[in-house]
Amino acid sequence: MSSNPQQKRVSRQTWRFDQNVRLQSSAVAVGPKEGEGPLASLFDVIHDDMYASQDTWENAERKLMEDAVSTALKKAGVTGQDVDVILAGDLLNQNITTNFTAEKLEIPLLGMYGACSTSMLTLATATALVNAGYADRAVAACSSHNATAERQYRYPTEYGGQKPPSAQWTVTGAGAGLIGIGGTGPRITYATLGKVVDMGIKDPFDMGSAMAPAAVSTFLTHFQDTGREPKDYDLIVTGDLASVGYPIVKELMLAEGYDMDGVYNDCGLMIYTPDQDVFAGGSGCASSAVVTYSYIMDQLNRGLLKKVLVCATGALLSPVSTQQGNSIPCIAHAVALEGGQ
Amino acid sequence: MSSNPQQKRVSRQTWRFDQNVRLQSSAVAVGPKEGEGPLASLFDVIHDDMYASQDTWENAERKLMEDAVSTALKKAGVTGQDVDVILAGDLLNQNITTNFTAEKLEIPLLGMYGACSTSMLTLATATALVNAGYADRAVAACSSHNATAERQYRYPTEYGGQKPPSAQWTVTGAGAGLIGIGGTGPRITYATLGKVVDMGIKDPFDMGSAMAPAAVSTFLTHFQDTGREPKDYDLIVTGDLASVGYPIVKELMLAEGYDMDGVYNDCGLMIYTPDQDVFAGGSGCASSAVVTYSYIMDQLNRGLLKKVLVCATGALLSPVSTQQGNSIPCIAHAVALEGGQ
Repeated sequence: MSSNPQQKRVSRQTWRFDQNVRLQSSAVAVGPKEGEGPLASLFDVIHDDMYASQDTWENAERKLMEDAVSTALKKAGVTGQDVDVILAGDLLNQNITTNFTAEKLEIPLLGMYGACSTSMLTLATATALVNAGYADRAVAACSSHNATAERQYRYPTEYGGQKPPSAQWTVTGAGAGLIGIGGTGPRITYATLGKVVDMGIKDPFDMGSAMAPAAVSTFLTHFQDTGREPKDYDLIVTGDLASVGYPIVKELMLAEGYDMDGVYNDCGLMIYTPDQDVFAGGSGCASSAVVTYSYIMDQLNRGLLKKVLVCATGALLSPVSTQQGNSIPCIAHAVALEGGQ
Repeated sequence: MSSNPQQKRVSRQTWRFDQNVRLQSSAVAVGPKEGEGPLASLFDVIHDDMYASQDTWENAERKLMEDAVSTALKKAGVTGQDVDVILAGDLLNQNITTNFTAEKLEIPLLGMYGACSTSMLTLATATALVNAGYADRAVAACSSHNATAERQYRYPTEYGGQKPPSAQWTVTGAGAGLIGIGGTGPRITYATLGKVVDMGIKDPFDMGSAMAPAAVSTFLTHFQDTGREPKDYDLIVTGDLASVGYPIVKELMLAEGYDMDGVYNDCGLMIYTPDQDVFAGGSGCASSAVVTYSYIMDQLNRGLLKKVLVCATGALLSPVSTQQGNSIPCIAHAVALEGGQ
């Protein structure tokens, strides 16, 4: 009998992975500020300058993604030749970090873009392809860099523009995961894809508020589709809602009958300490990627966490669209990771 | 017995679709210049101005993608609610056309970016997800717009910069395909994913030369993986190599022992007539998308073509990367379409 397509899906938006697909290894590379944060001991590569010994910030971001992917492969004892496909994205125009990194690694590339949701967008899609047999091994990766993102999305860093407290600090870092069937590492069991949600917010310095409803939409879909509740997870994280968006999600979820208290955190709040001068907290693709592929992976592998839901949130704005008066469309993709056998 | 993963793949880069997955319907929307071209009678929507009755070019591009997707759905007698996922991308920063279109259509979004290879990148990935049962129906879509692309990638149109003859004309248009199992329409049988190929070319006004080796790389992989030869296809097209890249591909393929003569064409050469003042020919995501989702679809459905291989070529440059002295990494993804039962 051939595969029954119904097994693969719980609903329109929620995929089930039934083939013992695992996050077999992962790695992260970060910049200096992240290297001074509370999770630093779990990071694989810490560069002590923003240039990561390269000649431009853009090249530094490539180095971060390359470091993350090559370290993840090394941990698993494989090379780029053993990987069938890389699904990756970043925040730079034309996904340029991803393109150059895939070139260097010589791995067939499926380029993806979901702003800061890219971490789970790539992990979900890579897992679906592995589960279905379209790849034996796939890599999911993404990156962001504070200086490349600032000058592209807002103002060049040298301009020294003032920011309101609702602004966030783009994480300098990259994370990569190696996905395959069997072996060790957390099982990847579900993914819930997001729809674009737009509440009419137009302020690019307040992305936490813009993204919170997208996270809520994906959480509600996930819980309804799987029959799970927040308490079925040891930890639920959003990607980069930080101190503005985080309480909005808690409140909106409670209003929908889901108490997230005690189980919910945000990667943008976990990656820095409050005294690190990061406005409302971390943001960028790397916020959720770095926390997932270091701390969460470590906790799952050590049995300290059993079930984790990572919901990566993306603000799908462009400088042109906000200047033209458009609001900020947002999206969130969630992936469930489960430790043990 | 559960599915045998080996059935899904021929090799690292070539996927086989074994579940009677079909391009059930497709549609295209274009601007005025394309509406005066040789394929115009096959286009679903032709806007007679570059603004498509919108207030900005960016909004016009959204209108094109929305027109293409909604017309494709209408032809199949379904609505956005019947579609599980849209895989789409465009050339604008942050994939903004795609994001706003997915919002309007209320379909869960997997955003993708592969420059002008996005047409086949999205079709290949959507087909894999449908073949595997992760979606009953998926939409693949992409768009480009001459005026939005020119001001983003090169100079604002009003600047009136001179261009060399090797430059290409970005197609204003969008194409969309509805992918599902069974029904009518051409079968989607194989996809060959590309690796990033970089021959060191740095001139953003000569993308045909930069992209040709990526097309050759994907063609060689496809023919080796499937055991097929050029003559097994009635038509093989590249996406947008135009008059500069097209003869390079023919020559390089011949040197590798594959005679493409009589079977090979390029969408960038097919979409305009030589007297339309388009430099070397058409380019942009929409070049291959518009030709595939109008002319090729029509020919396959009418039995005038039996087997077609579409190889969409993407120049993965950014204005920042070329200004920083980087060369232009390129990629090509190919999809095989077969008519009849």
